[in-house]
Amino acid sequence: MKIYLAGPEVFFPDADELGARKKQICDQYGFTGLFPLDTQIEPAATASATGFLISHENEQLIQACDLVIANLTPFRGASADVGTVYEIGLARGMGKPIHGYTNDPELYHSRLNALFGSGTEQPQGQLRDRDGLKIEEFDLRDNLMIDGGIHAGGGHFIAAQKKAAITETAAFEEVLIRLSR
Amino acid sequence: MKIYLAGPEVFFPDADELGARKKQICDQYGFTGLFPLDTQIEPAATASATGFLISHENEQLIQACDLVIANLTPFRGASADVGTVYEIGLARGMGKPIHGYTNDPELYHSRLNALFGSGTEQPQGQLRDRDGLKIEEFDLRDNLMIDGGIHAGGGHFIAAQKKAAITETAAFEEVLIRLSR
Repeated sequence: MKIYLAGPEVFFPDADELGARKKQICDQYGFTGLFPLDTQIEPAATASATGFLISHENEQLIQACDLVIANLTPFRGASADVGTVYEIGLARGMGKPIHGYTNDPELYHSRLNALFGSGTEQPQGQLRDRDGLKIEEFDLRDNLMIDGGIHAGGGHFIAAQKKAAITETAAFEEVLIRLSR
Repeated sequence: MKIYLAGPEVFFPDADELGARKKQICDQYGFTGLFPLDTQIEPAATASATGFLISHENEQLIQACDLVIANLTPFRGASADVGTVYEIGLARGMGKPIHGYTNDPELYHSRLNALFGSGTEQPQGQLRDRDGLKIEEFDLRDNLMIDGGIHAGGGHFIAAQKKAAITETAAFEEVLIRLSR
């Protein structure tokens, strides 16, 4: 079983080591991990052409995998990394099982309220941000399309019990444990 | 041709009006717009069950459309709304054409740098944010999986020439004009 390892680890200075570590954990449970940086890209004529090439290679990797496990820990805001979110959407559209984990146990509405809230007391179910825009209150871990897509395919979405760094792997390993049962 | 109208308009207090307006513009060009709020949801037993129900209905709407036009204007951060991003990934995985527009003409690396940059001068091609994480520099409008997915399917990704509110529809209409040619 080949698992595409989606997540914002690719932006870290030690991305290759982080990928190698996750692949090693996959090995321990009898899975093969595919990391976005596995494909070596030669720079194209323009920056945007290089970007499109990387996107193409990642889409191919996802096509080649049996399932996706996404690191959905909040990244640069209240939600998961958007590249990762695109990838789980893509995988689900292709009919592949998607799973996720987050190293932040806080619920989505609480993070949104902390980052973008109005700072005033508001009745439950009627939360608005400081611009008057609705804050989703569904007791979910992120935008309902993310939690919903994972749920609809029978996937696991594991949250760390205590807030941990984006690169921590305990919740990731918990997904693998459940998959190997 | 049925077009799924993905975007963060659903969070606005006048979401129904915003959806009706975009559907009317679709009509003008001979298309039928499907808006996420078209499906009326009865609240389920729990908040999360209601969220899953909305997600399911939206996935069904996307399955029923011929193509997607996504409002990818930055929302609560440097990137497009994550729910919208999940939806274009899903549509692409289903083999449907995806198109997008943004009312912010600034490129992604410039927005990331403004919001999360280190504040120090850095050589081009080696931009890092304040946490030392890589800032994508591909002269694209958002994360390369978003621009890349649209590009790979031959889609249009139109940017407004001047920064405009999230709910402005000129760039949206420009996508329709190109589609109707």
